[in-house]
Amino acid sequence: MTSLLLLSLGHGAVPGFLADHAPADRALTIGYVPDAARADAGAAWTVAERDRVVALGHAVVDVRLTGSDAATVAAALDGVDVLYVAGGNTFALLDALRTSGADVVVAERVRAGLPYIGCSAGSIVAGPSTEPATLMDDPAEAPGLTDGRGLGLTDAVVVPHADGKLPPYPLELIGRTLDRYGSDHELVPLCDDEALLITGPGWKVVESA
Amino acid sequence: MTSLLLLSLGHGAVPGFLADHAPADRALTIGYVPDAARADAGAAWTVAERDRVVALGHAVVDVRLTGSDAATVAAALDGVDVLYVAGGNTFALLDALRTSGADVVVAERVRAGLPYIGCSAGSIVAGPSTEPATLMDDPAEAPGLTDGRGLGLTDAVVVPHADGKLPPYPLELIGRTLDRYGSDHELVPLCDDEALLITGPGWKVVESA
Repeated sequence: MTSLLLLSLGHGAVPGFLADHAPADRALTIGYVPDAARADAGAAWTVAERDRVVALGHAVVDVRLTGSDAATVAAALDGVDVLYVAGGNTFALLDALRTSGADVVVAERVRAGLPYIGCSAGSIVAGPSTEPATLMDDPAEAPGLTDGRGLGLTDAVVVPHADGKLPPYPLELIGRTLDRYGSDHELVPLCDDEALLITGPGWKVVESA
Repeated sequence: MTSLLLLSLGHGAVPGFLADHAPADRALTIGYVPDAARADAGAAWTVAERDRVVALGHAVVDVRLTGSDAATVAAALDGVDVLYVAGGNTFALLDALRTSGADVVVAERVRAGLPYIGCSAGSIVAGPSTEPATLMDDPAEAPGLTDGRGLGLTDAVVVPHADGKLPPYPLELIGRTLDRYGSDHELVPLCDDEALLITGPGWKVVESA
């Protein structure tokens, strides 16, 4: 059972998601993937995001992808109950996933049941393509990235910050993004007080004697 | 809102599906697509299937695809509230959809809200690929068919009659089908008293302030 919570900014839906989808029989450890902000390490907003995750009251361990490899990431994921993929630059994050081989490992683990929480770039990268992030994030942060496919954990491509309240993402930029990429992708615009909850394939087997 | 009910054989889930997804403000007209059984027209099992649809108590009009064209099918669909795509040979059905141009018309209408009921071949063809039907149905019934893609209305490929109770589809054939195609397709085996209910993309936007 695939369980994902894709945030735009606000964390309000996280405690309920953990209660519903994380193991209930032990203290939780959250794996924190910081790589989307690797060019901004130490910036106030990156520290603030990690602090908000720590404030949830669970153990938090960093799962850094850049410079790592698939085996190391796999071993790290063995020790976490939930994965939290933080925000930043979508292409930097995808590059970190791809070059480490973590893309395959993460997708396999999430498909096998590891709950996934994304925020902003971490939400976008869960979809089938990162192309719709091109206007919002600078692809030049990952010059070696040639394959824009995301993790493919959902058909939806989140467009975070769709209410235009975060200064780097004004409404006109959101509008251009929806206009340019809306016909080729299943875009789901999320306001900063919204999240996308994905808990299944969209179907169920029913009786029909 | 996409609404599909994909049957294996039993019709038990149909009345509830119609109550939930068909227009409630008028008598219903069901469009009946018979083309999967075009090589078996008049056979007892094809007559029995149509009789079961008639027995639902709504008006039933045939929407024949073979020899038709996209404009004619589109006009016919204007007059129906629900589409019922009957069983038979999956490849004959797909060939009828493709050569008439109805594949595009039907997919558009269903994505726009026309409720779709499939049965057996009509269920398989709603998925992204008909390849998993290769052992169960004879592709030779549609020798001109070169493109095996289905309507793509769901990611699931139904494997009907998975309880092996229908004589043409013994359990060993179901087993070989799951074994051969299970790794490349999202197979959903359905017993004859089950159906697959598809009513959305598998996600919902939730509050997260």
